[in-house]
Parts: sequence; structure tokens; C-alpha cells
Amino acid sequence: MDFFDLVKKRRSVRKFSNENVPDEVILKALKTALLAANSSNLQPWEFYWVRDSKKKKDLVKACFSQNAAKTAQELIVAVSRIDTWKRNRNLILKNYKEKGKLIPIVEKYYNKVIPLSYTHDRIGLLGVLKKILSFFIGIVGLFKPVARGPIFKYDVFEIVTKTTALACQNFMMALVAQGYDSCPMEGFDHKRVKKILNLNSKSHVVMVLGVGKSDPKGVYGERFRIDEDLVIKII
Amino acid sequence: MDFFDLVKKRRSVRKFSNENVPDEVILKALKTALLAANSSNLQPWEFYWVRDSKKKKDLVKACFSQNAAKTAQELIVAVSRIDTWKRNRNLILKNYKEKGKLIPIVEKYYNKVIPLSYTHDRIGLLGVLKKILSFFIGIVGLFKPVARGPIFKYDVFEIVTKTTALACQNFMMALVAQGYDSCPMEGFDHKRVKKILNLNSKSHVVMVLGVGKSDPKGVYGERFRIDEDLVIKII
Repeated sequence: MDFFDLVKKRRSVRKFSNENVPDEVILKALKTALLAANSSNLQPWEFYWVRDSKKKKDLVKACFSQNAAKTAQELIVAVSRIDTWKRNRNLILKNYKEKGKLIPIVEKYYNKVIPLSYTHDRIGLLGVLKKILSFFIGIVGLFKPVARGPIFKYDVFEIVTKTTALACQNFMMALVAQGYDSCPMEGFDHKRVKKILNLNSKSHVVMVLGVGKSDPKGVYGERFRIDEDLVIKII
Repeated sequence: MDFFDLVKKRRSVRKFSNENVPDEVILKALKTALLAANSSNLQPWEFYWVRDSKKKKDLVKACFSQNAAKTAQELIVAVSRIDTWKRNRNLILKNYKEKGKLIPIVEKYYNKVIPLSYTHDRIGLLGVLKKILSFFIGIVGLFKPVARGPIFKYDVFEIVTKTTALACQNFMMALVAQGYDSCPMEGFDHKRVKKILNLNSKSHVVMVLGVGKSDPKGVYGERFRIDEDLVIKII
């Protein structure tokens, strides 16, 4: 199917049929997710495919037992992390080295710029220090463009969650391309979801994705978008 | 082209050729972006297609004159907003009413739950109040799943930026589907970009997207992804 038809076909399905989803469909969609664009190639995402029946039951409950979770054949949780950058950065540098392509500017970027952006302590002291530093950067910024962030831990979370969302859209599209449907959910008790997945405080639950084939009544109404002119601005 | 081939073909292009991009290609990609999944259908995104030559020049500078910006034929800025929910919510409710489909649960959701999540004052007092309230919600949460957020303004920003990223991935894919390339940039002086676009404090610059056809040397090296087992967890 044409890409633009797939985009039109993708809808958030609130009720799935009881047809099961082959494992290879999910795996292919997950692998496709990982090919999304991402911030500095740090791949700060994780995808938990929850198959254990006890965990799955708990996850449905943590999603307030909404239909899209309850009727989903499979449940995947997309997670963003601010603490995997060091491991991933090392793997990136190792790969550059192995290929004999580690140039100084890349090495400096991953060894100096990235740690400055991503390093944060538990109580947020470094965030405060970065905020103070940003005042001086702001003075330089009066005269030329400067990088003004990320400053606080939540700024880093916005970056890693943004990147994980890019992957999530790929995941959903990869399902439609294989004839399956999904529902991205943000309505859940994030503390409980994190407990089920055994996640630490350096991770956010980006969305829970229900997967299956749509029930004939799975889509609640026609797609509605506000007038394009309200959000597409040509300047 | 097959969707999975398109995903493989999409790479961040750092140098574009001087072949121009027809307007209809950009417009089609922008309209496709708007069909992405999004949070509560509130469509908190904006896409600025910067065509004015002075503004474009300033935008390139604000992106530190990096190649991907400098050589891009077209530049689009994706923006997320925490202040368009009221207008959009009203349009959503109007549409439901016109179709005679406004059921009480939907009306309650948009008139009670959404304002509770999205309303924030300038100095963040409401965030503090919500944090206090969340303590009591946490007590209830000991016994049953509860919605624990968003609390602070930055939590709302994470939601709207997440949603805008879903649209950005659609945008980039829609370009590949039409034979064009893109580069999503996060390296920019956000204060200067916001000034160029005349944006207020209730908006974040999600990414600047350079668009064009790749120069033969536009992609810097092979795609590298860390081992899938590090990020796909079957539990």
C-alpha cells in the first residue's frame, strides 16, 4: 500500500478483535521503530513487550482497564531513558573506531558536549549549576547564537521522550503496513507501569501501545483535524 | 516503494544538493504530518515553513550555520505549544456537537480533565498546587491505579513535544515517499529561533527540519544502531 494511504489508514483503535498477532509482526514493527531519526544517535529508547500474563494483567489495570488495553492482543510499553547515554555513547565511539572513522570533532562531541548535556545528579544540583552557567551563556548569546540547553533534568527528558516518539510513530506505521492496528495510550498510572517494568527514576513511560486487529467498531468516529491554516504557517 | 524500504531509505542528510523542492511536496508532507496520532486529539503542534529570505538567513545562523541548515532548500520549524489546547478543545467539541455525537463522557473529559492537566500560570504556582494535590492522589494510589500527572508546566511540555515528534516522523517519511530528504536538527539557539518565529514562552521549538535532495555525500556514514537486545525487552 502507498505510504499516504497507510497514514490515512492508521487510526487509534479503542477496541481490538480477538484475532491474535503473529510474533514476527510485532518484532518487525519493533525493529522498524529503531530505525527512526533520533537525538545524537544516542537511542535513548526501550520497548517492553509485555507477554507474561500476570504482568500483562497488571499493565491493563495500570491503564485504568480502558478498552484499548483490555482488548489488545499485545501490549508494548515505550520508555525513554536519560541514563543509557553513556553505554550507548561508548558503543557509538567503538563503532567509529572499528571503522577507522573516529574524527576529532565527533570524539569531542561525544566525550565533551554530550556528557555536559546528559549528566545529572539525583537531587538536581547540577541542574542549578547549569542554570547559573546559562546566565553567562546568555550574555554571550546577546552577540551570537549559543546553545542554551538542556539545563534541567526535565529538559533532557523532553529530548529523550521526543526521540522515542519518533520511533513510536514508525512502530505504529509498521503495524498498519502489515495489516494490524494500534492504540497509543497516555492514560495510565505511570508509577504502577514503572513498577511492573522494574524501571528507575531515570526513565519515563512515553506511551503504552495496544496492538491487534481492529474490531468492526474499534474506531470511535471519523478523524477530526482542526483547520490546517491554524497550524501550518508560511512565513 | 514499500514502507519498510522507505524507513531504511530515510537518513539524516547533512548536505543537500541545489535541486529545488516543489511547493506541493512540502505541503503534502506537512498535511501528512497532521494525520499523526496525538495526545487527546488536541493537536498542540505548529509547523513554520520559513520562506522569507531574511528570516531564513537568520534561521540558518540560529542553527549555528550547520551544513544541514545552510544547504537545505527549505526549512521547516516544528513547534509544540501548551497554550492552544483551549482553542482546539473548543473546535473539537464544536465538531462533536455538529455531528450530534457529543456524549457526556467526552464532554466531561474535554471540559474537566483537560483543563486540569493543561492550565498553568506564568510563575508556576498552579504547578506547586498540583504537586501538593498529587500527594493526596498518591495516598489513593496505594490502593488503586490513579492518574498522577501532568503536574508541572514542563510535564505538559513533554506531552506536547512528544505528540509533535510523532507528526515530525510522519513529515520526514512523507518526504522520502516523494523522493526527498530531510535532516531533523536539535542543535540551535532556541531563543533566537523563537524570536524569528515570534513565539511566546508557552511554545517550544521541537526541531528544525532541513529539506532537499541529498548531495551525493549528504549522508555521513553507514547507519549505526546498538544491539537490538539492549532496547527491545520481552518480559
